[in-house]
Amino acid sequence: MAAAEAERPSVTGRHISRKYDEALEDVRTSVLEMGGVVEEQISRSLAALAAFDSEIGERVVRDDYKINRLEVQIDEECTRIIALRQPAASDLRLVIAIIKTITDLERMGDEAEKIGRTAVRLAGNAPRRMRYAGVRNLGRHVQQMVHQALDAFARLDVEAAVAIAREDKMVDLEYAACMRELVTYMMEDPRRISEVLDMIWCARALERIADHAKNIGEYIVFLVKGKDIRHTSLEHKELQAQSEV
Amino acid sequence: MAAAEAERPSVTGRHISRKYDEALEDVRTSVLEMGGVVEEQISRSLAALAAFDSEIGERVVRDDYKINRLEVQIDEECTRIIALRQPAASDLRLVIAIIKTITDLERMGDEAEKIGRTAVRLAGNAPRRMRYAGVRNLGRHVQQMVHQALDAFARLDVEAAVAIAREDKMVDLEYAACMRELVTYMMEDPRRISEVLDMIWCARALERIADHAKNIGEYIVFLVKGKDIRHTSLEHKELQAQSEV
Repeated sequence: MAAAEAERPSVTGRHISRKYDEALEDVRTSVLEMGGVVEEQISRSLAALAAFDSEIGERVVRDDYKINRLEVQIDEECTRIIALRQPAASDLRLVIAIIKTITDLERMGDEAEKIGRTAVRLAGNAPRRMRYAGVRNLGRHVQQMVHQALDAFARLDVEAAVAIAREDKMVDLEYAACMRELVTYMMEDPRRISEVLDMIWCARALERIADHAKNIGEYIVFLVKGKDIRHTSLEHKELQAQSEV
Repeated sequence: MAAAEAERPSVTGRHISRKYDEALEDVRTSVLEMGGVVEEQISRSLAALAAFDSEIGERVVRDDYKINRLEVQIDEECTRIIALRQPAASDLRLVIAIIKTITDLERMGDEAEKIGRTAVRLAGNAPRRMRYAGVRNLGRHVQQMVHQALDAFARLDVEAAVAIAREDKMVDLEYAACMRELVTYMMEDPRRISEVLDMIWCARALERIADHAKNIGEYIVFLVKGKDIRHTSLEHKELQAQSEV
């Protein structure tokens, strides 16, 4: 995030009140901070799962409160800005995009917590971890996507935001392949059904994290372009992103 | 909803501008309309699943656009109100609660769509439908919870909103029991793993719908009491609801 943060432009321009500019910048910085914590939680939960490490898994579960706390704090900052500053046009879009973004970030945190819990549960079993390469690859891909989404938010980069929707399609395909693989393990050895089911939940959690990243991409387009591209096809999104503001 | 709608009080009181009052009432009515469509979609998806009826299932998938359209429309209404009316205090809380509520309603619709898709997929298999009583009971319970949430929203009833969090705990227990039952089916007959997995996804979708209903309950408390009760324990929520405004 550091590189992206350094060069991030101000969408809001300059206001007569320097305090207003600062308030908007502060809340954007808070969102990036929250994003950083979420990235760390996802990364730790995947490490816990790869090694069936209950200690790291428990830490992920314990640290989820940090994300929740940031969500409530940012929500309050946004409410205060709307009430005190009565933002218009692009400032208002920024605040609304932030209110939506932090909901998705918080839910990503919940999914990471679930993966952490699963790692704790599996740690006792010492299962055959070599088998789950599919879930691990999916995890790496999803991590990348979350990073892209936060980077696009930091730079308010519409093209990068639209690219995330494209990436989400790839993740969906990868997830489907991963699921097929996991089902065959269950069929081969019904005694492992519970264990494989746990890995299926993790794959599902990763797919959901990717969905949330995609949502954030859509808020960025809404924010910068003033257009709502949710519920439109990918081709349409690309066209919208290319069109003049 | 009809009875609840008739007696719903105005949280916003009267403004100097009658148009402003009307705009706030209109957007609340739109949310209830959206809620009605979501309830119908959930109800149909469960009917499709109970009878493995591909026709009803396809209709659910086809009709999801109605929910998406309402979400975008209400979002725009809210943005317009903030920009034109610069709402303060409880009005602002109402608008923010609505922006959050419709996101949860839209995601409920997505889960109903998933159940509809599963019903279509299973329709060809003609599986032993008697076995899935657990999922059907869970479905009834979740439907009830969604109705309670919308009712609490319509009447801005904080006690009813807190009761939803209590109900969600019950749904979680029911879901866990249902999952245990489904896993035993897989173990008994590994050839049915794919089919049972489909039912597991449906149970999961129902559990998520209940979560979204719980979220809506939390927004109602925030709206009426001006307190953010997310991420607090159930006992704490009850205390908050009882406390003086």
